[in-house]
Amino acid sequence: MFETAEIGHKISKADYKKAVPALRADLLGAQAELYAQGKIPVVLLISGQDGAGKGETINLLYEWMDARFLSTLAFARPTTEERERPSMWRYWQALPPKGRIGMFAGSWYSDPIREHIDGDISRKELDARADQINRFEAMLVNEGALVLKFWFHLTREAQKKRLKALASDPRTAWRVTQWNWDRLETYDQLQATAGHLLRMTNTPWAPWVVIDGSNDNYRALTVGKVLRDALRAKLANTSHPTSPVAPMVRVDTDGRNVLSALDLGLSLTDKHYQNELAHWQGRLAELARDPRLQHRALVCAFEGADAAGKGGSIRRIAGALDARQYRIVPVAAPTDEERAQPYLWRFWRHLPRHGHITLFDRTWYGRVLVERIEGFCTDADWLRAYTEINDFEHEMAEAGLILVKFWLQISQEEQLRRFQERQRVEFKRSKITEEDWRNRDKWDAYQQAVCDMVERTSTGTAPWTLVEANDKRYARIKILRTLCERLETELARSPKHWADAERPGGQRPSEKKRGKKK
Amino acid sequence: MFETAEIGHKISKADYKKAVPALRADLLGAQAELYAQGKIPVVLLISGQDGAGKGETINLLYEWMDARFLSTLAFARPTTEERERPSMWRYWQALPPKGRIGMFAGSWYSDPIREHIDGDISRKELDARADQINRFEAMLVNEGALVLKFWFHLTREAQKKRLKALASDPRTAWRVTQWNWDRLETYDQLQATAGHLLRMTNTPWAPWVVIDGSNDNYRALTVGKVLRDALRAKLANTSHPTSPVAPMVRVDTDGRNVLSALDLGLSLTDKHYQNELAHWQGRLAELARDPRLQHRALVCAFEGADAAGKGGSIRRIAGALDARQYRIVPVAAPTDEERAQPYLWRFWRHLPRHGHITLFDRTWYGRVLVERIEGFCTDADWLRAYTEINDFEHEMAEAGLILVKFWLQISQEEQLRRFQERQRVEFKRSKITEEDWRNRDKWDAYQQAVCDMVERTSTGTAPWTLVEANDKRYARIKILRTLCERLETELARSPKHWADAERPGGQRPSEKKRGKKK
Repeated sequence: MFETAEIGHKISKADYKKAVPALRADLLGAQAELYAQGKIPVVLLISGQDGAGKGETINLLYEWMDARFLSTLAFARPTTEERERPSMWRYWQALPPKGRIGMFAGSWYSDPIREHIDGDISRKELDARADQINRFEAMLVNEGALVLKFWFHLTREAQKKRLKALASDPRTAWRVTQWNWDRLETYDQLQATAGHLLRMTNTPWAPWVVIDGSNDNYRALTVGKVLRDALRAKLANTSHPTSPVAPMVRVDTDGRNVLSALDLGLSLTDKHYQNELAHWQGRLAELARDPRLQHRALVCAFEGADAAGKGGSIRRIAGALDARQYRIVPVAAPTDEERAQPYLWRFWRHLPRHGHITLFDRTWYGRVLVERIEGFCTDADWLRAYTEINDFEHEMAEAGLILVKFWLQISQEEQLRRFQERQRVEFKRSKITEEDWRNRDKWDAYQQAVCDMVERTSTGTAPWTLVEANDKRYARIKILRTLCERLETELARSPKHWADAERPGGQRPSEKKRGKKK
Repeated sequence: MFETAEIGHKISKADYKKAVPALRADLLGAQAELYAQGKIPVVLLISGQDGAGKGETINLLYEWMDARFLSTLAFARPTTEERERPSMWRYWQALPPKGRIGMFAGSWYSDPIREHIDGDISRKELDARADQINRFEAMLVNEGALVLKFWFHLTREAQKKRLKALASDPRTAWRVTQWNWDRLETYDQLQATAGHLLRMTNTPWAPWVVIDGSNDNYRALTVGKVLRDALRAKLANTSHPTSPVAPMVRVDTDGRNVLSALDLGLSLTDKHYQNELAHWQGRLAELARDPRLQHRALVCAFEGADAAGKGGSIRRIAGALDARQYRIVPVAAPTDEERAQPYLWRFWRHLPRHGHITLFDRTWYGRVLVERIEGFCTDADWLRAYTEINDFEHEMAEAGLILVKFWLQISQEEQLRRFQERQRVEFKRSKITEEDWRNRDKWDAYQQAVCDMVERTSTGTAPWTLVEANDKRYARIKILRTLCERLETELARSPKHWADAERPGGQRPSEKKRGKKK
């Protein structure tokens, strides 16, 4: 959920100054139309970490827009009056009327997050709250509202830096209390809880917009643009409030995303590679024979552009395993039998039983990648697929299946080089088709779909690992190492925590890189 | 949820024999079209109580339809093979392909119900399972399936009788095991758990059909007709699987419903009435001053046809209360301010704080009554309102509010008499308008809407009490008595059970009638 907000976004002062006047005019125009039309209440949730810019954003929107049609609702601990009503009562009282914008500083998300961190409610209870919230927000949208939820994110280091900066300046020191420092201590818990809750409530009708809070210009411009675009889209189409189709929200206003942030120059020398390969294959062979795996099962999912090296990586894993224990499932066009069933059926049928391993060469993510881009399914279909996939993977986790997902990223140039090589070398020629060349034309659309996929389906129990795959050796070792480390962690868990993993264990932008620059 | 199935449905042998041939032909025709079209898989859940006719229904459908395109999936305790996969795996394996009908004897509902009764999962966990099930079934429907869920219901007495009859016949005695008798012991728990789960999963896209299992002819004919109508509707419209609009399912194939089953001849003599009135008003006054009410609050909701006597009943309650403690909220057309907010907003705002009482003269049920019948909102709006209302009332219960809901039922003749009296008596003339006369034309549609409302919103914490109101004296006393008894029960509960009421405490068809026949 927070992947895109951790790659370090930045917009320069000059770019910012250039962009603001037009944006303000747009926002004022949209706001005036909203008021004149008088049909749509706008519910903006301003939430996120301390010091990530919540207050600044509210002040900025007041500055940019017409304050007469704007209200801020701040919620602290409930008053006696509020405590004597159902917990949602105070939020109902604060809803903006049609034609106006209500900004919620603190919202119906605050209590469940705090209660789960404090241990007052279990994960299952948190999930039940998420479903309640989804129904509440669906009701708002069905009643005509635009619901937009901002979450401002900071990495642990960035948050610490922010708090220190605020504390050291006498003009802002009063804003930093012991409570803020205590919150920093529970940073990981907040990430895990909020990440899970945000994912559960990231619905097409009321999407979350996670924004990197570390750069003021980027944050301000992104909030403004997202709000403007959402207002325009809603004003243009008030007739179908319940339509399940919502545009994905773009926050890469500075052109950076989780894929472009990867360092594709990482590589290994052949000697280094051979050593590492022997080491990790040996480790994997041991783990596959670990008696604890007899009560679990392993599913590896491989996705990546054509010629990204999925097959080669899978073979390096299979090479360490006993043939009776694993199966490779290549995913191609569905059979007749599969076509007569719901989309996920053909993946369900291949789930391994205890002690076994399934390696998927391409996966159920086809729906949000190739089917989305090529128009093989409707927008509504691939939009609902994120939730369906999260449910599917959650059921795996609950049953003790260990799921490890890899996205192999190569550059467009590297793909071209490999395509040309395939055409040159006779025994490789069969691997390249007309379709592969056609897919290249849609490179940018595919990259965007991958970013959406990572943001929406990288969960605590099923994190995505993004693999820098321009160098095959580097990629294979990273995959083997990640797999071994994940297996070690998972096998150490007790059954009741199988489905309760805290923080994604996969790719972290801050992770120490072990390869060398080319 | 089970109201309609407890009023004693019956279809005679002659009527049954007359109806079957055409029904069978219709079913075969629909099945052939289904297969030829090859687009829709049909998922039929056959569930309910022991002895209520699950097996008989499956056999009957095999007899009536083409067995080649029909399959039965029976699920007992999971096998080792199944246990080593996620719990939904075996149901995925059993899904019927497009064009075919799969009957599930036992389904994804069996485990949650059993686990909750055994105390293995909490109410919140049960709710989380319900939400998972809703997402799963929504996925099936989005993928083109028709999902129809039958629940066969028996009253406790009827079930006992059935089991005895089976056990005493040597040809069927083998079907009755100790396990069946044990289940009878937990009858109430099953009703409470199943009722709650059915209500939570009674979605417009995959509705439950609760059928009285005590009369074989009624059950068979109703299943057949519901299936035929659902197949026809689905075959006619495959293009909009996700449309939230689904017809309400009619099970009154014998013309009986919860309203027609009421005995409107019940009445009280004036002397009896005066005595009872004094008694119950006195009791109510005591209960209103009970210190335990200082941590609770009371909401009374009154609905009924025009001239049913809502106002008079409310005044008899208010007469026992301190004016500082209660408020009467008459619900008329919404104000401008209310119109600018979501539908339920104008009811939320009037929720009482602790120690206080609100009496609603007409309520939030307007959406599924007058707004539905008069077309003031879309079908999608009133269909989603059932869930929204259940959520709203659940939030009240969680906060400790005690909600008591009354439907005042009068006959069409009695209404006419009262209308005429209003026109005759000068001081009553203002109470009758053109609109009242117009509403009378839609009597049957209103009755149907009330039956749907009772079935979908009579919950453990917020049961409907149906009041036989042709005699005003009888109605008022029944209301006062129900209110007092409910308050006594509720005030005795501990806070953690506020929202966990087991079985509806309101109108039960088997309830002893305290009035006399006119």
